[in-house]
Amino acid sequence: MEKLFLAADLGGTNLRMAAVDSVGTIVSRNRMSTPSDGKQEDIVSAILSVIAEFRRELAGKFDLAAFGAAMPAIVNSQAGIILRSPNLPELNDLDFEARFTRELGIPVVLENDANAAAVGERWKGAAKGVRNSIHVTLGTGVGGGIIIDGTLVRGIDGTAGEIGHIAVEPEGYPCGCGSQGCVEQYASATAIVRIAKELMPLHPETELHSSLELTPLDVFEAGMKGDRLSLEVFRVSGTYLGIALGGLVNVLNPEAIVIGGGVAAGWDLFIEPLQSEILRRAFQHPGERVKLMRSELGDDAGILGAAFLASQKIKA
Amino acid sequence: MEKLFLAADLGGTNLRMAAVDSVGTIVSRNRMSTPSDGKQEDIVSAILSVIAEFRRELAGKFDLAAFGAAMPAIVNSQAGIILRSPNLPELNDLDFEARFTRELGIPVVLENDANAAAVGERWKGAAKGVRNSIHVTLGTGVGGGIIIDGTLVRGIDGTAGEIGHIAVEPEGYPCGCGSQGCVEQYASATAIVRIAKELMPLHPETELHSSLELTPLDVFEAGMKGDRLSLEVFRVSGTYLGIALGGLVNVLNPEAIVIGGGVAAGWDLFIEPLQSEILRRAFQHPGERVKLMRSELGDDAGILGAAFLASQKIKA
Repeated sequence: MEKLFLAADLGGTNLRMAAVDSVGTIVSRNRMSTPSDGKQEDIVSAILSVIAEFRRELAGKFDLAAFGAAMPAIVNSQAGIILRSPNLPELNDLDFEARFTRELGIPVVLENDANAAAVGERWKGAAKGVRNSIHVTLGTGVGGGIIIDGTLVRGIDGTAGEIGHIAVEPEGYPCGCGSQGCVEQYASATAIVRIAKELMPLHPETELHSSLELTPLDVFEAGMKGDRLSLEVFRVSGTYLGIALGGLVNVLNPEAIVIGGGVAAGWDLFIEPLQSEILRRAFQHPGERVKLMRSELGDDAGILGAAFLASQKIKA
Repeated sequence: MEKLFLAADLGGTNLRMAAVDSVGTIVSRNRMSTPSDGKQEDIVSAILSVIAEFRRELAGKFDLAAFGAAMPAIVNSQAGIILRSPNLPELNDLDFEARFTRELGIPVVLENDANAAAVGERWKGAAKGVRNSIHVTLGTGVGGGIIIDGTLVRGIDGTAGEIGHIAVEPEGYPCGCGSQGCVEQYASATAIVRIAKELMPLHPETELHSSLELTPLDVFEAGMKGDRLSLEVFRVSGTYLGIALGGLVNVLNPEAIVIGGGVAAGWDLFIEPLQSEILRRAFQHPGERVKLMRSELGDDAGILGAAFLASQKIKA
């Protein structure tokens, strides 16, 4: 019977799940709102109920062989434990792998969502065939995943990949992580709105003044129409991201940097300052060598990466 | 016949060479001044003459099976080509591997000296048995080498490991690499002397005032006697190094950071600010996890690493 792999993207708003075959085709999908009553057990039950539906739907036709989950949290992926989940703090310290292995009777793997996205893009997206790459997810925060010699870098406890928390301004804006001046404070969706508001007094001509609830999309759309404040915001963001990535290019000499997440929609406005800052910061050879690419899988990068990691788990 | 591996540390001042056995014992050593007439051929000939001496000495007893060379340069270690050698610019663009393979008739491997030191410390030094580590060489410049899952990270062209060129102060001191604010400008031997001179006007009490030709050792020795300027210099250096390493701890989640090079002699003066800055910058779990260690092999780290890489070359 053909093997399928269950994969989940466990966000603060939605639980998105899929059953994926061994070559990366999504055979079935499901989603539900993440229970928001703050109870760990309710989230676990919600995940189990979606998996039960997959089992009913696919039983007899496919063997659901392993389960991979990606989530926006600091996870010990070696042990399968959630260390710190800022969006769903009720999941802090959950021994995810042990719990779901016990419930499901199949191998389970847990990974940070940006790390999973890096794996997904290498498997089925922009980084196919690339052996050394850096994946950047520009969303509410800035996530990352590092692929070296074709393998996700997990580090000694599996917390590796947090490129959003490289300091680019030593005494810069305070970060939720406890440090300050992290690149997340300059290149995330949240940062784009904050920087726009900070720079507004210098740009009385901006059309953004009128916005009550400013979104990154507003800043992007105004920028595409030539709004000078909005262009400056993306220039600042791209430049700071370039400082962090230029350093990583020197350290890792990657073939490609893949950029995904919601803010990647602003590609046309940040790619030039980003590229020129990488060239300014990195040594000539690795700086000219690295290709900047846009994510191809969008929201499915994490799910496909989780499915791939699940498929690896039964091989290991 | 027992195999030995020729290893070289090709510095701007001295060519240090050794014949090393398969378990890392140095069987024989040799050194000579690096020819300084600016002619590439004279350096190549000097290396070949030292190797000829080893062959005379060891012939009939050992099989000299491969040659590994470490040098303070940006090298394409995949292709074995010297890209940019700041200290010996006459070696720029030398196809080292092809040339020495032809001359010697044995496999040849070329590596950056800090990368080789990382390999050496993992083989026979402080990082023995450590699977994920960052090696930092604090010398005239700041070099580095990254070990992931027991293997040196070389990147797509073999230029990886340049942690000295992570920007820690975006508009900071200009760096020879073309960027500015690189950690090399704050934590190298050169930087320690520069920072001491910059801060002197603020410290009329310092005993360093009288020094004509200030060296990093002067600053260290004064600091050990409680000189406030000297303590401040090492605090600044350690802090900036901590900004760079804190970011790398978030990205790589290493088990250990090994610090070598001449400036490592100042360990007692910079280790506290370095450690506390890493804890401030890195996430809690990886920050508390990583062990700071002092290099155990000193000047032999690069030579032993080059020998190890040579031994790997005949296995590959």
